[in-house]
Amino acid sequence: MIATSTTLLDFLLETRTHSETICKPLQIEDYVVQPIVDVSPPKWHLGHTTWFFEDFILKKHKSDYQEYNSNFSFVFNSYYESMGARVVRTDRGNLSRPTVEEVYAYRKHVTHHLKELLEQTEASEELHSLVEIGIHHEKQHQELLLTDIKYILGNNPLQPMYTSDFSEYTPSQHKQEWIHKEAGIYEIGHHDDSFCYDNELGRHKVYLNDFKISNQLVTNKEYLEFIEDGGYEQVLLWHSEGWEWVKSLPTKAPQYWQKQEDNWFYFGLAGVKPLDLKAPATHLSYYEAFAYAQWKGCRLPTEFEWEASQDQLEWGQRWEWTESAYLPYPNYQKAPGALGEYNGKFMVSQKVLRGGSVATSDKHTRPTYRNFFHPQLRWQFTGIRLAQ
Amino acid sequence: MIATSTTLLDFLLETRTHSETICKPLQIEDYVVQPIVDVSPPKWHLGHTTWFFEDFILKKHKSDYQEYNSNFSFVFNSYYESMGARVVRTDRGNLSRPTVEEVYAYRKHVTHHLKELLEQTEASEELHSLVEIGIHHEKQHQELLLTDIKYILGNNPLQPMYTSDFSEYTPSQHKQEWIHKEAGIYEIGHHDDSFCYDNELGRHKVYLNDFKISNQLVTNKEYLEFIEDGGYEQVLLWHSEGWEWVKSLPTKAPQYWQKQEDNWFYFGLAGVKPLDLKAPATHLSYYEAFAYAQWKGCRLPTEFEWEASQDQLEWGQRWEWTESAYLPYPNYQKAPGALGEYNGKFMVSQKVLRGGSVATSDKHTRPTYRNFFHPQLRWQFTGIRLAQ
Amino acid sequence: MIATSTTLLDFLLETRTHSETICKPLQIEDYVVQPIVDVSPPKWHLGHTTWFFEDFILKKHKSDYQEYNSNFSFVFNSYYESMGARVVRTDRGNLSRPTVEEVYAYRKHVTHHLKELLEQTEASEELHSLVEIGIHHEKQHQELLLTDIKYILGNNPLQPMYTSDFSEYTPSQHKQEWIHKEAGIYEIGHHDDSFCYDNELGRHKVYLNDFKISNQLVTNKEYLEFIEDGGYEQVLLWHSEGWEWVKSLPTKAPQYWQKQEDNWFYFGLAGVKPLDLKAPATHLSYYEAFAYAQWKGCRLPTEFEWEASQDQLEWGQRWEWTESAYLPYPNYQKAPGALGEYNGKFMVSQKVLRGGSVATSDKHTRPTYRNFFHPQLRWQFTGIRLAQ
Amino acid sequence: MIATSTTLLDFLLETRTHSETICKPLQIEDYVVQPIVDVSPPKWHLGHTTWFFEDFILKKHKSDYQEYNSNFSFVFNSYYESMGARVVRTDRGNLSRPTVEEVYAYRKHVTHHLKELLEQTEASEELHSLVEIGIHHEKQHQELLLTDIKYILGNNPLQPMYTSDFSEYTPSQHKQEWIHKEAGIYEIGHHDDSFCYDNELGRHKVYLNDFKISNQLVTNKEYLEFIEDGGYEQVLLWHSEGWEWVKSLPTKAPQYWQKQEDNWFYFGLAGVKPLDLKAPATHLSYYEAFAYAQWKGCRLPTEFEWEASQDQLEWGQRWEWTESAYLPYPNYQKAPGALGEYNGKFMVSQKVLRGGSVATSDKHTRPTYRNFFHPQLRWQFTGIRLAQ
Repeated sequence: MIATSTTLLDFLLETRTHSETICKPLQIEDYVVQPIVDVSPPKWHLGHTTWFFEDFILKKHKSDYQEYNSNFSFVFNSYYESMGARVVRTDRGNLSRPTVEEVYAYRKHVTHHLKELLEQTEASEELHSLVEIGIHHEKQHQELLLTDIKYILGNNPLQPMYTSDFSEYTPSQHKQEWIHKEAGIYEIGHHDDSFCYDNELGRHKVYLNDFKISNQLVTNKEYLEFIEDGGYEQVLLWHSEGWEWVKSLPTKAPQYWQKQEDNWFYFGLAGVKPLDLKAPATHLSYYEAFAYAQWKGCRLPTEFEWEASQDQLEWGQRWEWTESAYLPYPNYQKAPGALGEYNGKFMVSQKVLRGGSVATSDKHTRPTYRNFFHPQLRWQFTGIRLAQ
Repeated sequence: MIATSTTLLDFLLETRTHSETICKPLQIEDYVVQPIVDVSPPKWHLGHTTWFFEDFILKKHKSDYQEYNSNFSFVFNSYYESMGARVVRTDRGNLSRPTVEEVYAYRKHVTHHLKELLEQTEASEELHSLVEIGIHHEKQHQELLLTDIKYILGNNPLQPMYTSDFSEYTPSQHKQEWIHKEAGIYEIGHHDDSFCYDNELGRHKVYLNDFKISNQLVTNKEYLEFIEDGGYEQVLLWHSEGWEWVKSLPTKAPQYWQKQEDNWFYFGLAGVKPLDLKAPATHLSYYEAFAYAQWKGCRLPTEFEWEASQDQLEWGQRWEWTESAYLPYPNYQKAPGALGEYNGKFMVSQKVLRGGSVATSDKHTRPTYRNFFHPQLRWQFTGIRLAQ
Repeated sequence: MIATSTTLLDFLLETRTHSETICKPLQIEDYVVQPIVDVSPPKWHLGHTTWFFEDFILKKHKSDYQEYNSNFSFVFNSYYESMGARVVRTDRGNLSRPTVEEVYAYRKHVTHHLKELLEQTEASEELHSLVEIGIHHEKQHQELLLTDIKYILGNNPLQPMYTSDFSEYTPSQHKQEWIHKEAGIYEIGHHDDSFCYDNELGRHKVYLNDFKISNQLVTNKEYLEFIEDGGYEQVLLWHSEGWEWVKSLPTKAPQYWQKQEDNWFYFGLAGVKPLDLKAPATHLSYYEAFAYAQWKGCRLPTEFEWEASQDQLEWGQRWEWTESAYLPYPNYQKAPGALGEYNGKFMVSQKVLRGGSVATSDKHTRPTYRNFFHPQLRWQFTGIRLAQ
Repeated sequence: MIATSTTLLDFLLETRTHSETICKPLQIEDYVVQPIVDVSPPKWHLGHTTWFFEDFILKKHKSDYQEYNSNFSFVFNSYYESMGARVVRTDRGNLSRPTVEEVYAYRKHVTHHLKELLEQTEASEELHSLVEIGIHHEKQHQELLLTDIKYILGNNPLQPMYTSDFSEYTPSQHKQEWIHKEAGIYEIGHHDDSFCYDNELGRHKVYLNDFKISNQLVTNKEYLEFIEDGGYEQVLLWHSEGWEWVKSLPTKAPQYWQKQEDNWFYFGLAGVKPLDLKAPATHLSYYEAFAYAQWKGCRLPTEFEWEASQDQLEWGQRWEWTESAYLPYPNYQKAPGALGEYNGKFMVSQKVLRGGSVATSDKHTRPTYRNFFHPQLRWQFTGIRLAQ
């Protein structure tokens, strides 16, 4: 179902504002740096999501629109090869200009013109659809914005907090239990007319064997047992490339864990605190999730098992690694043109994650949502759910 | 079904001899080099397959056996982390000793003791099973031996031939046709008591949509049309990481294709010849196979579609890239101990190939066989079969 | 001669102020980035020069001094291995904190205490000497500050100017002439009691052959002739490692030269302008300086020839590459302790530059001053003077 | 003085034979590998020295000469950029062909034609000079041949010996003493009409201060004291880049030293033996030589000090690191054309070594000979002589 222009405009404005709200606690300097290639400078996220609206919508659908600054396309294009030259990804953190103030001015300009566009015209279905994609694209970057900020602060020797009252999880009210599902045919994929990405489409049948899946995520307490049992030293628990990765780790523990004397601490958005044993373990690579499951005599669920049982799970605090590789569904069709670069071109060498996290923006995820990352990445709020 | 000791011994001796037959056309120098990390020196293959029998069988099951040379374990272990220290893979081509003659002596010694072992004793089921694994392990290396030899010779500026009468394919007697398969549940995986690897086990149901699959492989003529249509220059046909890979290619064509003036030539085991347009295209990466299929408006089959239709296909000349990632089947169990390192630890970041090739040893492949490689590799006789 | 406390204090305060004056035209974002490893973020220079005073002077010589922030030593130590752990050089641009404001507060605090220290006490000779080193150390960083700022701005796709009225050279009033010097023994090295670095000490004799040295630097006009004659394509003009370097250059021209259509432009601190043919050529590597001299049938002077004739040269606008390697003078003595890391440990694999540049701070250079860089570096205002 | 054709021919034939004599103890496999980039396969040395004669002499000076194999120029050119395309250096060990037998046939062919050429014609001065260069070029490679063989064998886990009776030094008959030299002007460089390289020419005056130089090389016993005193752990003894190099060393000791339990062993051409404490220390990098001298309160001599005192030194067992960088002498002239690439293009970033070693061929070195290597290299028989 396409939203009416009014609610679409509200949705747009709320989304544009939210990106800026996330950045409120930052110092100007925090907007600029890129400590690892996977982390983008916050001002780049603010500019890139704006460029997306300008380039895919305003330039084509608003006849009186004047490009704000012709250099910005070069600076803020992310990876759309078909949209022209761009700053290479590793260079994003080398750019002091445009300044943060200029990026905010750019945002204001583009939001103003989007507002005019949606107020003036009877929006076509195509325009509606493009604005919706732009909104969801920005929501996706809001999650990255928050996790990138966490990395920027957590990587700093001073380890400044983001904000003192940020809680990274809500305690569960239930005990751990195994949910049993019967073998049979299940339907997978998006199926109503609400928004989704192209990679969720192609509703299709899959056959699943009997399986069990845990209603709860693995906790820090449980993961700590794995560490203390020497999990990082047992080669047979790991994939071959996972073992190479383990050997390169300076600390044999999840990202943001720090040992001071004999005690584990954790850097969270609220600063460095003693490790909370009840919290769901997070900032784990797929390799770690897999090795933990092996050690436990279990396995990770497939993305189909997850989707088939998700209505019985508590989810939404951690992106959950699945055993599934990121591949097209049957009859997958890429969008035409540059938007076709959105998802399809990443469908190799990545794993699917399901669920959502404390960093996920409101209304951004859903039961059919497919997130994907390379197996070694762990700067997102990733977690582990076991299956059997 | 476990072979009786006699036939097992015949099978063993025939296999041991065949590895040496493959090396007959070589000069001593050809046994030594490692031009890329994926290619091992032929003498290493000869030693490693021998070490496998010595370490997993003779040392444990033949009470009077004396280790041939305690250093060889260090030199010829491939990747069995749990079996101790070893020469790192990239260093295999830096070792001039043991000499080729010493490796042949080592082979003779181990084969002799295996023969004694199988003749003397009533072989236990475990021993039978280990010998069978050792045989199939050596057959697997025979294929690598031949393709590694091809790379060693083809990479040389002098481009020496392997043998003048080696034909890399048998012409098909049939026209290209699409085979239609009905949607429904299919059974996948090994199902009788003949030999197979652990990764084929766990016979299980999958649901497949309607699909069409070509009875023929893509030919050089067809692939050349893709090149001439600018397939290597159209970014939207490629995966993101495939595009990076394409940019690094010195020649925008499959491995072993060479352009001299306006004509394409091909280095085969019989030497450099004009490109044979009727031959099935080969030495392609997964990225190329995928891009070709995109350009053609088709796709690659999944490994399940392939297995479900394989009895209607002509296969066995090229390993065929599938769209499937290499993952465990439901209820997959790794073998205990070091043999458990055989397959499971590679189940991430690789693609499945099905079929077999002109380099595959007799009795080595079967309809359920799952080969796997990283998507950029193309020194094997890989090929393309299309699906819709 | 040791300055009296009063003039030393004036000298100190003037130096501390000047670093901040250099940064006046910057936006906060410009203080943070590190586009290449050789360029440090401006705020790092401001903090590091302050840490040097704090760690080498205040902590040891001012009894009531409290360390400002114990983490700053980790962040602002550059390379003094003997002074403890530090942020690795490549990571300087990944740190958003301490903020620019905090760094200025740190500067104010340390300057205040230095002032108190010099006002309160009868400064010992040792203290005097340490303050003098701290001042010259900061002056050295002022030059880097300016050239690093140039790189940060010039590397940005928006190419913002630093300040519109910055002139990068003063036109010479004289024609090019060759100065002839007679063969004989010359005295080299610092010889009065004014300040100098340890690497200038050890006044000693050298024997020089007859030589000629140009009174003028090579101009852009002359260097352009080299480019247009194909200098970058003639392998025999280059050192072997220089030729490898040339092949990696995206533009076969000095740093900051840009070709737009058929015209050369140059990014200077005053922004992008057409190339000024009368200006002394600059931002050249040693490899380029050497190849240019070869092409011209000349050579570069040695540092001894330069020092022996410097009173007849106009110098001070470009650091001038010499043919000399950076080596200790006879009887060279490193300072004891951490200050001994200042110069001596770099005396391998670097070339000596003599003179000074438009970026050099007042009173920082002198006829015996020895600057040194790796041969490929060219982000400084380097230039070419020919000899025969 | 130009040798007469007869003695030149004898000299040539003796040299050609000697290269092959060095290779006598090798297995065919030993001729092929390249374990590090600095070490070339022995068959490459045999082919390259032959190509040098073919390309610089036979093709130009023997009218009936037919090129042996046009591909060999590509395979055996080392670095003469001006002589056309060539196998990149890192790829030398990836080539199994031409075989060792083919290389020997190539040698025979070229030697035969050189013999014919020198017997038939009254050799011109130019031809004489080229043959002389070819001879010295081959002698230079004979030294590399032996040290490369040592590396190939010593790097092998089986550590095969080269030959059981190879002695790597001759004990000195004298006690360690300091030789005192007076300050003054000394003449440096080649000065008669015997053969030398272009880098020794330009006999010129240098002024030297008073200095002392040891008549003996540093022994293993002395170097072991440095190790036991923690020399590899004291950062202030090392150059900055030397310290980085030390951190990457798997064993904090010279190349070929191995610790087994508490005892030091050494791999020599005669195999692995307990460390000989009386032997001159060898296989040291410049960084180690420098750090040792620092620790001892001494320094390394300059190449001029060495040359000025060499007639009072025992030398010829180890190439001796000097403090001098490899730079052109005053009035240095490169040979015209491709021969000009011989020396001059390496005159940056390298250190001079003086003397000669147990691996140096007869008549190859002399008091003015200048060897040069990058400071980290130590696969040659390098050593340490101290100065004050």
